[in-house]
Amino acid sequence: MKKIVTIGGGTGSFMLLSGLKKYPLEIGAIVSMSDNGGSAGVLRDELGVLPPGDVRQCLVALSDASDDMRALMNYRFTEGGLSGHSFGNLFLSALEKTHKNFLEGIDTAMEILKVKGRVIPVTGQKAELRMELSDGTFIEGEDNIDHATFQKTGVKKLLFASTVKANPVAVDFIAKADVIVIGPGDIYGSILANLIIPEISRAIRLSHAPIIYNANLTNKKGQTEGFDVDDYVSAIENIVGKGRVNFVMYNTKKPSPRLLRKYEEQEGKNFLVEFHADKNPKRGYRLVQGDFLKEGETKQAKGDKLAASRSFIRHDSKKLAKSIMLVSELPEYESIISGIL
Amino acid sequence: MKKIVTIGGGTGSFMLLSGLKKYPLEIGAIVSMSDNGGSAGVLRDELGVLPPGDVRQCLVALSDASDDMRALMNYRFTEGGLSGHSFGNLFLSALEKTHKNFLEGIDTAMEILKVKGRVIPVTGQKAELRMELSDGTFIEGEDNIDHATFQKTGVKKLLFASTVKANPVAVDFIAKADVIVIGPGDIYGSILANLIIPEISRAIRLSHAPIIYNANLTNKKGQTEGFDVDDYVSAIENIVGKGRVNFVMYNTKKPSPRLLRKYEEQEGKNFLVEFHADKNPKRGYRLVQGDFLKEGETKQAKGDKLAASRSFIRHDSKKLAKSIMLVSELPEYESIISGIL
Repeated sequence: MKKIVTIGGGTGSFMLLSGLKKYPLEIGAIVSMSDNGGSAGVLRDELGVLPPGDVRQCLVALSDASDDMRALMNYRFTEGGLSGHSFGNLFLSALEKTHKNFLEGIDTAMEILKVKGRVIPVTGQKAELRMELSDGTFIEGEDNIDHATFQKTGVKKLLFASTVKANPVAVDFIAKADVIVIGPGDIYGSILANLIIPEISRAIRLSHAPIIYNANLTNKKGQTEGFDVDDYVSAIENIVGKGRVNFVMYNTKKPSPRLLRKYEEQEGKNFLVEFHADKNPKRGYRLVQGDFLKEGETKQAKGDKLAASRSFIRHDSKKLAKSIMLVSELPEYESIISGIL
Repeated sequence: MKKIVTIGGGTGSFMLLSGLKKYPLEIGAIVSMSDNGGSAGVLRDELGVLPPGDVRQCLVALSDASDDMRALMNYRFTEGGLSGHSFGNLFLSALEKTHKNFLEGIDTAMEILKVKGRVIPVTGQKAELRMELSDGTFIEGEDNIDHATFQKTGVKKLLFASTVKANPVAVDFIAKADVIVIGPGDIYGSILANLIIPEISRAIRLSHAPIIYNANLTNKKGQTEGFDVDDYVSAIENIVGKGRVNFVMYNTKKPSPRLLRKYEEQEGKNFLVEFHADKNPKRGYRLVQGDFLKEGETKQAKGDKLAASRSFIRHDSKKLAKSIMLVSELPEYESIISGIL
């Protein structure tokens, strides 16, 4: 069975894994551990546990448990002292407390949730993100970075507030993987937050597996406005090595005018990630273009009020997974030409 | 397979079910729903859910899930806004929220926890206990009753603050049961809180199954000081019918002098439940005497600080279950004589 490793976090990984789960694959889902906002932040501050939210989403995506169990994991309390906490986060925090550490707690969670494959936190340590800007100032913590406007000032470097060691299981899974899939997801909080751990980038450099990058659909106001596919690939290759990304999955289907208007109001112009063929004729990756867009509205989980404010231009997990399977099945990954899918 | 129904709540039911689980029985565990203190009270007030604590204990007792899962269910958060909540209570509250009601949530809980048999809340409604005293005053709520001193004034009646209808599954299970086991447990909060629901007492009166009552080991200061076995049986038979209790399991093993001293300091003299053979030669039940006492200290669950203050003179679940099995196997429950076990 083909080993596939995904690197990301948040709703991007949830979507991707929900699609890949249907295929006969051995999946290892590496998840960033830098979330310090919302429920995760409260749990970390009050209980001293690691942020469970991204791991929870991946567990649910890969779970073969009943729909009831999956609904339960995503249920968010809306009243009293528990308000804002998702049940799944409390579940993972309690497991961390009743086990030696977070990583061992997740082993039990995977068993209870009948997870297909493996959810692998990129580290078992506190991994506080820090962004150094070009003017010498810093933004501390994933939550602050997520909500900051820093594009005009410019990003000098993304790093951790203290040394972070990789989870050895993550390094091992990358070393044995047949395919490495990066994204989609927030370039700083979900993608680079994994890659900047030295053992992770080293493992990717040493691997001979092709890398597929799932390009984001939209840019983020004040952070990545006007970014095109090459800008994202550059950000990744700055860490894992120039020319290391082999394939980029790029959506060409236009969202509905209604959605486009809504986004433009929120995110300004140039929020759609574009591909500029002429910009760099020597690029090292093959562009896999296709319709990867989810049709219709995204449903809101019961009790999950936060979800209502999330983006509605989304990948379709089935379309994306199918395309990844096709690409990874191609002999020697030759003959991929732009636009075949 | 023999159908056995247990009626109680709290640690008494937990102990009993842990022992009965080992036998080839179809178990229905009917649980009182009047708890309004501690974590249950907070959850009820803040989330409007039913009190989950007693149900949780029974679920764990009958669960065939891993030790990890069982430890998780009993884990009690000790810091921050979650402090005092057991994970299992949050689990059941979230299930109530993601299902139509508490009773349906428990069906999912039984599935997840691989419960052997069935845990049956005595009602799916809010069941606020009210105690009417002989001087015409009232004590409102199980938690207040639990902590009150009312023996000198005298109890006139235990009732509910509003009409409570039985869970039909409980009524049905009693009707089909081959054996009915009551207690051990707090006579007001755990035993009578079930029996005073009219459909429950009616079902017991109509049933032809023998009733086994597991007598408490100790009395409670200011509430049942000096009560003997007949006093407890009377309290039960006042509701289910004179002569309806067929067997009483009564412990004859003396606790250690150290434990006896400790209890006497806390509970005063006459805290041990005694049997006075001469008091009533016409009693309708057979006394089954034996050693039902747990040896050694009771372990404290990790994170469960509340458990430290709980009683330490306890039943041994194995001894008690074995004796119940023996009694319920006897042909026509004849030939039971005092002291055969």
